[in-house]
Amino acid sequence: MSRNIKITIEYDGTDYHGWQIQPGLPTIQGILTKALSKIDGQPVAVHGSGRTDAGVHARGQVASFLFQHLHSCETLLRAINGNLPPDIRVMKVEEVDESFHARFSARRKTYHYQIFTGKVLSPFLYRYVHHCTYKLDLGEMRKAIGALVGTHDFTSFTTTFTEEIDAVRTIYRLELIEEDEMLRVEITADGFLRYMVRNIVGTLIEVGRGSMGADQIERIIDGRDRTLAGPSIPAKGLTLISVDY
Amino acid sequence: MSRNIKITIEYDGTDYHGWQIQPGLPTIQGILTKALSKIDGQPVAVHGSGRTDAGVHARGQVASFLFQHLHSCETLLRAINGNLPPDIRVMKVEEVDESFHARFSARRKTYHYQIFTGKVLSPFLYRYVHHCTYKLDLGEMRKAIGALVGTHDFTSFTTTFTEEIDAVRTIYRLELIEEDEMLRVEITADGFLRYMVRNIVGTLIEVGRGSMGADQIERIIDGRDRTLAGPSIPAKGLTLISVDY
Repeated sequence: MSRNIKITIEYDGTDYHGWQIQPGLPTIQGILTKALSKIDGQPVAVHGSGRTDAGVHARGQVASFLFQHLHSCETLLRAINGNLPPDIRVMKVEEVDESFHARFSARRKTYHYQIFTGKVLSPFLYRYVHHCTYKLDLGEMRKAIGALVGTHDFTSFTTTFTEEIDAVRTIYRLELIEEDEMLRVEITADGFLRYMVRNIVGTLIEVGRGSMGADQIERIIDGRDRTLAGPSIPAKGLTLISVDY
Repeated sequence: MSRNIKITIEYDGTDYHGWQIQPGLPTIQGILTKALSKIDGQPVAVHGSGRTDAGVHARGQVASFLFQHLHSCETLLRAINGNLPPDIRVMKVEEVDESFHARFSARRKTYHYQIFTGKVLSPFLYRYVHHCTYKLDLGEMRKAIGALVGTHDFTSFTTTFTEEIDAVRTIYRLELIEEDEMLRVEITADGFLRYMVRNIVGTLIEVGRGSMGADQIERIIDGRDRTLAGPSIPAKGLTLISVDY
């Protein structure tokens, strides 16, 4: 009889080609699959809450899988981490109801995007932070944020190559936090389209530096056209913080 | 006429063979020397406040050098960082009196050593923190600290291959700070022998886990014998925080 296991994972995405398994490339899902299959002595299918792109980090990615062996959660945690590189760590292992699925059961996700606005970016931060040297008008950025929160068709903020047909998502919370020379965009939604956070933050920066008006956001959303919004912003500033079920 | 320049440097030492220039190996001094010589169009001799070993980090290393070009400090800062990898950054450039020398003028240095005592070490910390799974008695460690502070001959806490003859140093401050699952040893002295911080922290851990008694410290110091003290602890937990002049 197999058990349904939920794990919570942290990773530094710098050296990985994203979450999703790809032949011949180091990916988070690929490395987890290999570790879990080794421990269970049979192929284990690992389901993540969703993909993260190359270079994106996680402090609370969630995955689930069916497991045969009767290890305790404590023992399994140690066994998995013993088979992972130090830039990927399982922080928590739980046995869950058979109905739980990391992707289909997910109700909300929260991402943070970090922007450093000072002069010199510390060697201890550069892997996790985008360095922006433009002077940013936070008041204008907050006006733009007001137009983004809520239920909208976010076609203008996803990749043009997306396979998604339904691009309607609900942003529950979008906030801009300023701490000394660091800006953090915190965003919670029922789900995210590909590149959605990076395109939203890229657009907010255009507004902050005055290249776009906060009043244009509504028209950008209504236009359903990727070319209307601002550019995507680098992956390294983005971290998946948590997934709610 | 050349100018005497003082720079304050941060680096993530993970990928470097320490401060000191070594032919064919990536070192902090080697990379700085190359960048500065390129900018000045002639060989520049870079003097650090002292060596840091392979894998040791810095938030406040200081170096000085004579420079020919008449860049402003602001321009020089940008020029140097433009020629450095992102894991080495010059945070500050100052023009100083010709008598200033980063090594000979140094009066005190402060190092921090970080120890994680929780179950799973985060991917965002593992480069900068030593993971200790022993249960540690902080009260005993603090007793040992009491015996280490002050002016002593620290022969028992340096490498047996040291070239130093005078091993007398003064520890002005040695503290153990506990923050959740993180322990930080903060140490300020007039100077440090090679491996001195790592050997002191290694000894404190032996005391904390009960393998050595706090009351042995005095005898270890008096013995002037490296084999009496505890083992050295890994470089990655160590950071040079500041140098006072």
